[in-house]
Amino acid sequence: MAASDVLVVAGTHGNELNAPWLLEQWNRQPDLINSAGLSIQRLVGNPQAKAAMRRYVDRDLNRSFRVDLLEQSGGDLEMRRARELLGRYGPRGDEPCSVVLDLHSTTAAMGCSLVLYGRRPADLALAALVQSALGLPIYLHESDSAQTGFLVERWPCGLVVEVGPVPQGVLEARIVRQTRLAIEACFEALASVRSGVVRLPRQVVVHRHLGSCDVPRGESDQPQALVHQRLQGRDWVPFKPLDAIFEAADGSTVETPQMEHQSIPVFINEAAYAEKHIAFSLTRREVWTMEPQWLDHLSELLS
Amino acid sequence: MAASDVLVVAGTHGNELNAPWLLEQWNRQPDLINSAGLSIQRLVGNPQAKAAMRRYVDRDLNRSFRVDLLEQSGGDLEMRRARELLGRYGPRGDEPCSVVLDLHSTTAAMGCSLVLYGRRPADLALAALVQSALGLPIYLHESDSAQTGFLVERWPCGLVVEVGPVPQGVLEARIVRQTRLAIEACFEALASVRSGVVRLPRQVVVHRHLGSCDVPRGESDQPQALVHQRLQGRDWVPFKPLDAIFEAADGSTVETPQMEHQSIPVFINEAAYAEKHIAFSLTRREVWTMEPQWLDHLSELLS
Repeated sequence: MAASDVLVVAGTHGNELNAPWLLEQWNRQPDLINSAGLSIQRLVGNPQAKAAMRRYVDRDLNRSFRVDLLEQSGGDLEMRRARELLGRYGPRGDEPCSVVLDLHSTTAAMGCSLVLYGRRPADLALAALVQSALGLPIYLHESDSAQTGFLVERWPCGLVVEVGPVPQGVLEARIVRQTRLAIEACFEALASVRSGVVRLPRQVVVHRHLGSCDVPRGESDQPQALVHQRLQGRDWVPFKPLDAIFEAADGSTVETPQMEHQSIPVFINEAAYAEKHIAFSLTRREVWTMEPQWLDHLSELLS
Repeated sequence: MAASDVLVVAGTHGNELNAPWLLEQWNRQPDLINSAGLSIQRLVGNPQAKAAMRRYVDRDLNRSFRVDLLEQSGGDLEMRRARELLGRYGPRGDEPCSVVLDLHSTTAAMGCSLVLYGRRPADLALAALVQSALGLPIYLHESDSAQTGFLVERWPCGLVVEVGPVPQGVLEARIVRQTRLAIEACFEALASVRSGVVRLPRQVVVHRHLGSCDVPRGESDQPQALVHQRLQGRDWVPFKPLDAIFEAADGSTVETPQMEHQSIPVFINEAAYAEKHIAFSLTRREVWTMEPQWLDHLSELLS
């Protein structure tokens, strides 16, 4: 039996201000978010980065939960913070939590979405219930060896809530509101699973990660073109043949390999991904039939 | 006679990437921007801040051109940089430039606008010509003792070009395009003044700065509410009585003093102004009749 049902983490990236602000307001006003009878732990993921208003101090905390890094001792600030969080709230920690919600924001026009890392039944069950309540899109991140070590992977069940568009360093009421609704929907879903009355929806729609594209770069790694202004803000909209992808400084369209028909871009022009050489990621929309027993995995965690 | 007609400064703030990228592309492709026969100097205002992807290193460079700071010796990075820029390209510098264009971006939904500091005839003449060509709004910043020391004030004529919305740290084709068009319109206006064929428009529309508003803050300076989601993105739209201004974390509207009827907000939720305790600034729209002799001030500078 876990000490708490849910760990809510905000500010895993220090320049994403909305979720930490919401948690602070929640501390002052305990009925701000309905926890649906669940026991909740909440914290700021990377307080040092938040104080510095930067994504991270030494390395991206949300890429620091790789097993090889966690097994080392010492290391930089985020490596130590990852171990500290797991040691305290992880499944074998001092105050273990069953489920983790990791709250993020993006500069991309994604709206509110759920991000899953891999195909764990408990994650899929929770995400499907929230999708059925709020209609949020689900981005299934998997099979990308360049992007690993996400926080939620180290808990037996965990989702990222990703809300945008909002610039880094900006508090925006709409982002706070969408974050609050997503948290409450997760709590309600988990409470309904515990109460045993819930059924899974028959289907879940996922956007499965296929890979990422970068802008064309020249020597010295400088972009030679930018995301085309007709693509900017078109997250979740399937590519059509001949869609313009990149635009040069004079406004001309740059010839690029055609995107796979009906592949769907996400995280278009996310500020933090420029350094990762990602202009956008590509997904494929798939409708999966849920297996009823996926719910059992989640139910067991909450028993 | 100045050594160059125009100094174009990009990256006065190190996390505003679009104008520096445009200048770099212009270096590689000299016909990217039509300089209309003018001699141009161009540079990155704060290269150290740009390398660090921060607005500034020690202090805001665009508040460091105060006479009292410029008359000191030593000081922090931006104080020294301000003196260096003036010593080289200022009106009494080694390579003096007549007019300065300082290129900025904002997270606020301002579109492309021109910012003037005070009512200098040459600035007004240039801004009126560009407004007449492109229709851009003009924000006249004056009489605000809390905001002084702007770069353009130290040249005999100078405008800020401000383009948004774009998150800090993001390159966006639309922002680059609008910046490019504004630069070219300034060059064309200046060239037409030099050629002596131009007449001023009879009128210019300015949005005169009245002051700034902050979000409500509690102890420890934390915001207690945010810009209301119905106000977000409504830059340049006049306030009406009973307009909602701020929103609490639970989505409720916070009671605030009514804004003056027909006052017009700008820089709504600009990321960099949170630390200056500015949630938005207020302006009043005024239509001014141009004095024909204002053109002479600009014409003299270019002779």
